Amino acid sequence: MTSEPTFNKRVRRYEDIKSFDDSADLVICGFGGAGASAAWEARKAGVDVLVLERASDGGGSTQMSSCEMYLGGSGGTELQKACGFEDSTENMIKYLEMAMGAAGDKDRIRIYAENAAEHFRWAEKLGVPYKRAFYAERDVVPLSDESLLHTGNERAWPYNEVCKVVPRGHVPSADGDFGGTIFMGKLLQTVRDLGARVVVDSRAHTLIQDDYGRVRGVVARIDNKDKFIEARRAVILTCGGFVMNEEMVQKHIPHVRKVGLPWGNPWDKGDGILMGVAAGGQAINMGEAFISFAFYPPAKLTSGIFVNKRGQRFVNEDSYLARMGHYGFQQDDGEIYLLTQNEDFERSAYLVNTEIVGTGDTIAEVEAEAGFPEGSLEGTVELYNRFAAKGEDPFFHKAKEWLKPLVNAPFALVKYNFKDIKAPAGTDQGVPIFTLGGLEVRPTGEVLTPDGQIIPGLFAAGRTVAGLPRTCVGYSSGMSVGDATFFGRLAGRTAAGANT
Amino acid sequence: MTSEPTFNKRVRRYEDIKSFDDSADLVICGFGGAGASAAWEARKAGVDVLVLERASDGGGSTQMSSCEMYLGGSGGTELQKACGFEDSTENMIKYLEMAMGAAGDKDRIRIYAENAAEHFRWAEKLGVPYKRAFYAERDVVPLSDESLLHTGNERAWPYNEVCKVVPRGHVPSADGDFGGTIFMGKLLQTVRDLGARVVVDSRAHTLIQDDYGRVRGVVARIDNKDKFIEARRAVILTCGGFVMNEEMVQKHIPHVRKVGLPWGNPWDKGDGILMGVAAGGQAINMGEAFISFAFYPPAKLTSGIFVNKRGQRFVNEDSYLARMGHYGFQQDDGEIYLLTQNEDFERSAYLVNTEIVGTGDTIAEVEAEAGFPEGSLEGTVELYNRFAAKGEDPFFHKAKEWLKPLVNAPFALVKYNFKDIKAPAGTDQGVPIFTLGGLEVRPTGEVLTPDGQIIPGLFAAGRTVAGLPRTCVGYSSGMSVGDATFFGRLAGRTAAGANT
Repeated sequence: MTSEPTFNKRVRRYEDIKSFDDSADLVICGFGGAGASAAWEARKAGVDVLVLERASDGGGSTQMSSCEMYLGGSGGTELQKACGFEDSTENMIKYLEMAMGAAGDKDRIRIYAENAAEHFRWAEKLGVPYKRAFYAERDVVPLSDESLLHTGNERAWPYNEVCKVVPRGHVPSADGDFGGTIFMGKLLQTVRDLGARVVVDSRAHTLIQDDYGRVRGVVARIDNKDKFIEARRAVILTCGGFVMNEEMVQKHIPHVRKVGLPWGNPWDKGDGILMGVAAGGQAINMGEAFISFAFYPPAKLTSGIFVNKRGQRFVNEDSYLARMGHYGFQQDDGEIYLLTQNEDFERSAYLVNTEIVGTGDTIAEVEAEAGFPEGSLEGTVELYNRFAAKGEDPFFHKAKEWLKPLVNAPFALVKYNFKDIKAPAGTDQGVPIFTLGGLEVRPTGEVLTPDGQIIPGLFAAGRTVAGLPRTCVGYSSGMSVGDATFFGRLAGRTAAGANT
Repeated sequence: MTSEPTFNKRVRRYEDIKSFDDSADLVICGFGGAGASAAWEARKAGVDVLVLERASDGGGSTQMSSCEMYLGGSGGTELQKACGFEDSTENMIKYLEMAMGAAGDKDRIRIYAENAAEHFRWAEKLGVPYKRAFYAERDVVPLSDESLLHTGNERAWPYNEVCKVVPRGHVPSADGDFGGTIFMGKLLQTVRDLGARVVVDSRAHTLIQDDYGRVRGVVARIDNKDKFIEARRAVILTCGGFVMNEEMVQKHIPHVRKVGLPWGNPWDKGDGILMGVAAGGQAINMGEAFISFAFYPPAKLTSGIFVNKRGQRFVNEDSYLARMGHYGFQQDDGEIYLLTQNEDFERSAYLVNTEIVGTGDTIAEVEAEAGFPEGSLEGTVELYNRFAAKGEDPFFHKAKEWLKPLVNAPFALVKYNFKDIKAPAGTDQGVPIFTLGGLEVRPTGEVLTPDGQIIPGLFAAGRTVAGLPRTCVGYSSGMSVGDATFFGRLAGRTAAGANT
């Protein structure tokens, strides 16, 4: 222990530390999806593992989630193949690169796509049940027990023009939304059984780094005291994202925060990102957030059209909830409207506080009641109908399945204002959001400086890093848990030295 | 000098430095608009100043610019008042807060608006000529000698509904675009006359920080050797932005880089940001960039309408070039089109490589030739015309001045693809871009940690910081040079201790 003065509380000098309170080969900060997966691999590699978890038990945001994992490639996972789907690695890469655009990490995408099918086998071997059944509905998560579904834009334009349509959402089988509990229950128990030491209620807040730049341990707050813990081999930061850190959110995604409900576990405070940057790392993609606009189910709402307050369409309505969130949020004041025929109308299951602002037997009536400029909504619908009657949507290429002329009165116009809507029912205001920025790392987890150097002894995974998912527009559910567990494992294996 | 090993090359430990090669009360890294303004104040306060400039002479990006400064408030600057404009501080604050939205720094905005009129007097006292004449044209910069003009969205919706319309662009008087040379010529000479020592061809690349967190100096590369320079009072980082650092651009604004021509001086390499972060600072707003879509002059093009490839309008065409850039870039593939009557047609002065993709005596003809969905452009124009005939634009509220029905054939549709257009004529591909992210600082220049602590002995200003301008959509020309020189002065004065 030491009383040396240091200013930057997120990193301390190794040479000043006189003695340590504890030590391990590998110190993993965070026992969520990424941290537990890292610990699993490290224990398999035979190294001594100490996990520090800030909460009173492991699980993290992965446990709160449905635990969808976005998997495929290699001809198909066992689940995809059993359901009759083939999925080539190149097809999956094409999709992921398209989804991430300029922000995508090509190396990360490739290594993920090449090994995702194996990752599925790993999850099953943990004892997680995956039922060989495909759930074809347009939905957020199956409440029945099927394990395969579409959790992205595979069926929607422009993806369906470029990539072969394959479902890649793999979710533990259960009646109800319990994937996270099932998966993390198995994983945490297995990691403990493998002999990892886990200390809960302990917050790693500061790295210990030597004059050569090597990370040599962490300082953690345990029982209200700072404990100095040496990492003989490496430290792995798997502390989640920063969506629960109000100051960081305000600095990095202020525009999104205005409309969004932070979604994650309470300790998504950005600790890992801040420690990593303090040790010389670089935080990237910090301005990007996932925005979940789950206006469906019911899926039949998809047959309506979304317009902004100018009466203009702005997206194909069969887009995935994140793509809907991206384009919807882009409209002025985040104010968007769904025009639907009575036969397709029903309230959204996940979004409440929406408002019917116009009804009528003609579009002109609806338009007038809602206060849209005269002819604006009428013109849009007239054009939409003319092409829809031919099974075409030359503007946004909505799939034929959802394309039908809006001609059966009465009609309703439902207002979804991002500032007002609530989701899910009963919770705080706003659509669910979480962060997609974090430390820049190599796929194998080494934390990089802005100059591209590796910080020796420091690894990171999960939402602490800028990972696989980097855009809202191309986000698929399962990319975060898939990324966290897959690259958590890879970081654990690499840090344990199994790959060196 | 020392040979101690350190990993993070951007910060070294003060306690390890055995001797210094040089020293000063205040070490200022960068001799552009911000650095020179800081040096001016510090010398006035009587402290010993050493300026390190990476280029072979001072000037920075400010010298390359037109040196518009966005000024007003306090009832009006001398120039505004002489031209018959009154400008209250509250009106200016309202405009700036609206322009920056959730990303804005309210404290910074207020202190700027309250003191911008004084800042204008300071610039005039340097000997910079400002002619009492208002240039009313919709233009980028006057090539005649007037000094006051609109350089933002003051006249355009939605600003004109909320704020009193006042021009705030203050530009040195000259025939031609020489503002930067005139201003920086005066400022650099004055700073040298005041006794600041300036060392050119010297690159400050690493901060020296003690165990208490205080910044105590810099390491600078001079004559191909690392020199250790002690700062007895403080270091001020005024090293410009990072738009010339290809790696950082790729990490932080990859989507913009694809379409943009980096605009700035060659040493906008992000050195200041990287040093500041290494010392414990926080970089914010890193994903935001200014995108200059100067489709005018000629101003008469504003009477046309811009549409995306779906034939939809997306902005009031009388918006300022940055607002045009923001919304234009948002359209799919950055592909936008200007529909104009022959009587208003002329090639854009600043953008080349545009393409006429449709002409005709009817909109239907143009639409067909350009390959737009049948009825799409026709519908948009029909609606636009119907309201324009009444002097209204209920969709985007283009000002009456530019509102006229598009009825006089022939018509032309000009394609502006962000990927293809070049600007200015003859230069590299893309519209001009620069970065709006950097270190988080207090208005007085102190660099802040993510926890909001001040890093003792470290200040920053100019595009090294996240300053006054933080959004493209609300950017006005003159916000960067205004911010750099104003807050450069404030940082210089504060660091010199005049305010303590």
